[in-house]
Amino acid sequence: LLVFASSAQGADALPSWNEGRAKQSIVSFVERVTAQGSADFVPVPERIAVFDNDGTLWAEQPMYFQLLFALHRVKVLAPQHPEWASQEPFASLLKGDLKGALSGGGTAIMQIVMATHSGMTTEEFEQIVRDWTASAKHPKTGQLYTKMVYQPMLEVLAYLRANGFKTYIVSGGGIDFMRVFSEEVYGIPPEQVIGSSGKTKFEMRDGTPLLMRLAEVNFIDDKAGKPVGIHQHIGRRPIAAFGNSDGDLQMLQWTCRPPGPRFCLFVRHTDGDREWAYDRASSIGRLDKGLDEAGIMNWTVVDMKTDWRKVFAFEP
Amino acid sequence: LLVFASSAQGADALPSWNEGRAKQSIVSFVERVTAQGSADFVPVPERIAVFDNDGTLWAEQPMYFQLLFALHRVKVLAPQHPEWASQEPFASLLKGDLKGALSGGGTAIMQIVMATHSGMTTEEFEQIVRDWTASAKHPKTGQLYTKMVYQPMLEVLAYLRANGFKTYIVSGGGIDFMRVFSEEVYGIPPEQVIGSSGKTKFEMRDGTPLLMRLAEVNFIDDKAGKPVGIHQHIGRRPIAAFGNSDGDLQMLQWTCRPPGPRFCLFVRHTDGDREWAYDRASSIGRLDKGLDEAGIMNWTVVDMKTDWRKVFAFEP
Ligand SMILES: [Ca+2]
Ligand SMILES: [Ca+2]
Repeated sequence: LLVFASSAQGADALPSWNEGRAKQSIVSFVERVTAQGSADFVPVPERIAVFDNDGTLWAEQPMYFQLLFALHRVKVLAPQHPEWASQEPFASLLKGDLKGALSGGGTAIMQIVMATHSGMTTEEFEQIVRDWTASAKHPKTGQLYTKMVYQPMLEVLAYLRANGFKTYIVSGGGIDFMRVFSEEVYGIPPEQVIGSSGKTKFEMRDGTPLLMRLAEVNFIDDKAGKPVGIHQHIGRRPIAAFGNSDGDLQMLQWTCRPPGPRFCLFVRHTDGDREWAYDRASSIGRLDKGLDEAGIMNWTVVDMKTDWRKVFAFEP
Repeated sequence: LLVFASSAQGADALPSWNEGRAKQSIVSFVERVTAQGSADFVPVPERIAVFDNDGTLWAEQPMYFQLLFALHRVKVLAPQHPEWASQEPFASLLKGDLKGALSGGGTAIMQIVMATHSGMTTEEFEQIVRDWTASAKHPKTGQLYTKMVYQPMLEVLAYLRANGFKTYIVSGGGIDFMRVFSEEVYGIPPEQVIGSSGKTKFEMRDGTPLLMRLAEVNFIDDKAGKPVGIHQHIGRRPIAAFGNSDGDLQMLQWTCRPPGPRFCLFVRHTDGDREWAYDRASSIGRLDKGLDEAGIMNWTVVDMKTDWRKVFAFEP
């Protein structure tokens, strides 16, 4: 009996999901598009699935992890920038007044990102991110940020790939930031990461070709930018999309446009004990219009609290 | 004996290549990077090879095929644009004065491209290109343009893929133009095509999500833009690059930067009988600085006339 139970669990590709409509909708979709001869069969090259990152594959509280990286870099770089002592948003930040620093909203955040994500080669930046992800710890859990990933979503990624899907990240986060850990953490290679980016410039330095990161926006992969980024990188429409906020709404609309079998899912953050609870009123990861549309379109909405047996892999 | 000869040829992955240094350099590189335990072994995920398109995978004379497509579209669209009768470069073009129309250089070409490549959805554009490639014939050979591909290069693509390489197009041509035929003609799926692009905009039209093609440049994937495009799409440096002109020089420099096993190749158009002969002085596909650098860096230079047994697959 024990052997049988263990074997039955081994056959379950989504062991961290509780039985229920959300899990059932995923399995049913995959079985339909992979069943040879079925009307809903989709050839392997068209099995494209796209995943938002922040709040969908890993956590995003108390704020986006890449912003925490940028704040850390401001402190590291401050000695080389004496002018920051009297220049916002850096001045507030260096005085420890995070709220004041971010009161400038999107402009302040962009200034912080540009000051910390440009002025070096692509390879230097990669190393800086690699060092940070290998050492920085989440303020609440004490875990490395790359451990703050959702075990149930790792299972979905692996399950889809085992069924011939190509899995992509499509995130408002920085494309080169995520590429540093996407292969190791998610099994997603750098060429399947789509994200926001700054411009880069090819240069020969002492006979060595380099790409310099410039302080200029190239592309913002958020909201209506997500379908644009998908088209630019993939060139065909995905058949499955996973997100957690209104920033993913257009990606889900684009993916789930009829006809044909299509699957769209929102992760809803409902578990204030094991994770964080937030949706319609949150400034980070607001899920409001998306929740309405999910109801109308009959998309899957994951209730983290009831649908996920386990949230993070590091949980006992 | 006959059986043996046939079997030996069957084992040759590059049958349209004559024996010689060029062919030998390709085979030797592939054998080195795929030999388990060799110092030059490269893991499969890092086996990335990039190919220019015009003049490298298919012909580019008497002018770039995509420009011929655009000229055709100007004629089709002219009835909807009475203003073109007095507006250059369209006026000259519609009078049959191609040379006059193109005398405006890059600006004229850009006006022609923008007028013919924007103002429709991505899917409408795809269908327009599909119709053209299924019907338009090359002025010299009378073949479909998609038949004007180099048989020896198709063999290189297949040979690399059989050895674990992911093959990419990296071309100054339009990304959405090439994607229409890249999978069928080259075995390269749309997500492995990198090229120039205009901006697109996500829109809801009567409840249907669409991407509109705007008359605005997004990215020019040529010269110093090629390493930028490669980084943006792939996120790691290729280990093999194939081109035919100075427009590929930076891509080859970026790819062949030491250390590690790396392979760079220029196709040199030396066969005025079977194809076209042009290099240092040509306005289309100029190979000048690249030829000098290839000599210094010991890159492979293919002499089409002597290295290729067959040029086009349609040849007897
Ligand atoms: Ca998100
Ligand atoms: Ca070329």
